[in-house]
Amino acid sequence: MTPVTLCECFARDGLQHEPVFVPTHEKVGLIDAFTRAGFTRIETTSYSHPGQVPAFADASEVLERAPRRPGVRLKATCPNLRAVQRACADRAAGRGADELSFLVSATETHSEQNLRATREQQWRRVAEMTERAGSAFLLVGVISVAFGCPFEGTVDPGNVLEDVARFAALGITLVTIGDTIGLATPRSVTSLFTRIRAEHPTVTPIGHFHDTRGAGIANCVAALEADCHHLDSAFGGVGGHPAGIRYGGGDTGNVCTEDLAFLLDAMGASTGLDLDEVMRASRACERVLGRPLGSKIARLASAAEEVAHVGVH
Amino acid sequence: MTPVTLCECFARDGLQHEPVFVPTHEKVGLIDAFTRAGFTRIETTSYSHPGQVPAFADASEVLERAPRRPGVRLKATCPNLRAVQRACADRAAGRGADELSFLVSATETHSEQNLRATREQQWRRVAEMTERAGSAFLLVGVISVAFGCPFEGTVDPGNVLEDVARFAALGITLVTIGDTIGLATPRSVTSLFTRIRAEHPTVTPIGHFHDTRGAGIANCVAALEADCHHLDSAFGGVGGHPAGIRYGGGDTGNVCTEDLAFLLDAMGASTGLDLDEVMRASRACERVLGRPLGSKIARLASAAEEVAHVGVH
Repeated sequence: MTPVTLCECFARDGLQHEPVFVPTHEKVGLIDAFTRAGFTRIETTSYSHPGQVPAFADASEVLERAPRRPGVRLKATCPNLRAVQRACADRAAGRGADELSFLVSATETHSEQNLRATREQQWRRVAEMTERAGSAFLLVGVISVAFGCPFEGTVDPGNVLEDVARFAALGITLVTIGDTIGLATPRSVTSLFTRIRAEHPTVTPIGHFHDTRGAGIANCVAALEADCHHLDSAFGGVGGHPAGIRYGGGDTGNVCTEDLAFLLDAMGASTGLDLDEVMRASRACERVLGRPLGSKIARLASAAEEVAHVGVH
Repeated sequence: MTPVTLCECFARDGLQHEPVFVPTHEKVGLIDAFTRAGFTRIETTSYSHPGQVPAFADASEVLERAPRRPGVRLKATCPNLRAVQRACADRAAGRGADELSFLVSATETHSEQNLRATREQQWRRVAEMTERAGSAFLLVGVISVAFGCPFEGTVDPGNVLEDVARFAALGITLVTIGDTIGLATPRSVTSLFTRIRAEHPTVTPIGHFHDTRGAGIANCVAALEADCHHLDSAFGGVGGHPAGIRYGGGDTGNVCTEDLAFLLDAMGASTGLDLDEVMRASRACERVLGRPLGSKIARLASAAEEVAHVGVH
């Protein structure tokens, strides 16, 4: 079976909406834990404006201090040209990201509300950003609200396919299909990913599902069965506009890494992950945020430990 | 598309492990709320020994006082012959259940630990219970640990198919395939349900998945796609051996009704449920247990209400 690559998003998509700043050394420690667990793609930080997203004010420092291992690619989100310029400067100084991701929205209203640009304006920006990035990075295109929009409702899959084509035309063949507000269903996932694979065989799609309504893992399975072998997830299911009702978000956001990793393993899918180290990283994430997170596997493991502990005394 | 029937299990599988006794009038109120939401099969209580399972000491009273509507079947669990005798007495008095469920375990060790009987002893009991029940009830066979056992690990699907055949031979054609400790995966579900449909076309299988490891909804979708149109779930994901580490249980157990109902609706599957009433019943369940339960849809709805509330002032 084709191996499945999980991109661990806790450090960026996960931390983006946390109210407390996670110190740089703790972020670096988490990236190390993720690397030890076997993740080969790690969403590490964002070159957002530090005034607008204080959580990533230490973007360059995190990328500089994060441990580097062969075969592991660190990704940074770039919202605009200025961000790409910072990424290039860091890269030139030998401490940059390996991957950069650029964002578009599948609907006009979400583009204007979230990116403060019309779709056409954003596509022009993405073209500039792509040119500026040159060949120094692996680039990842991200299509937001691909399965439904908080403002416009239903999204025409044709628009998403057009966006996939536009990324491909810019030479960006890793394309993330983002279910920003958790409206995808296994059937809409099967349908869209089947079309992407058929109409754009040179593109490698990435499934990025939010678990807003509890269907995240089911959607990952549907993507996998539709020949998509890249999935995004975050430890503890953290992130994904957790309280952002404006974006249609609820208590949780991202698909939970621990639960997805164990399920893929049980299904015989090869992820290259060490499940003991996955649980170690899970505990590290809960320690850093100071609360139990949303993994069912983690709660199961805690319960087992408690029983074992009681058994000893 | 074939309609999907959800059996709402909150009142029995959900409440079985709750530490606090839910007063009879509140149970009756919940059954009423479930009926209003459109559930046509409701797991209502268990004729367990009141000394062993105090939660259901009021089994007869709940069944007597529960509102009756045409097309709605109330189910009671019967662990043994004595339970069937009580069910028959209630039925004769015009206040009984419409369905009774009888349990076997797919493995020898689980049968001995959970039912205190070897598999052969339990099958003899089930035959006696079936004979005693006569034609007064619709009978449901339940096969525990069908996808994995806390004592024996892997379960041979051949054993499960044999149990399906044994229920069918007793005339019991509604057969619940129970993933007691949440070890099923969408692939093992597809495989087993496809075999059941092919080898026992007269049997109507019911998917009963526990969400112990977060794969519950994905497994429901897999069952549905394998032509299984009956699924069990419980409001808030309550129940399913929540703290029973002996059974491999974690924080949560049953598949969450709210999240499953909304997903099925989004997938275009007809459930006959009124989603507004589903959310009303969801709030009633949270009120009765005095805590937020495990539905993501419920948290999303609360967040939306909070925002609306803030907006008013």
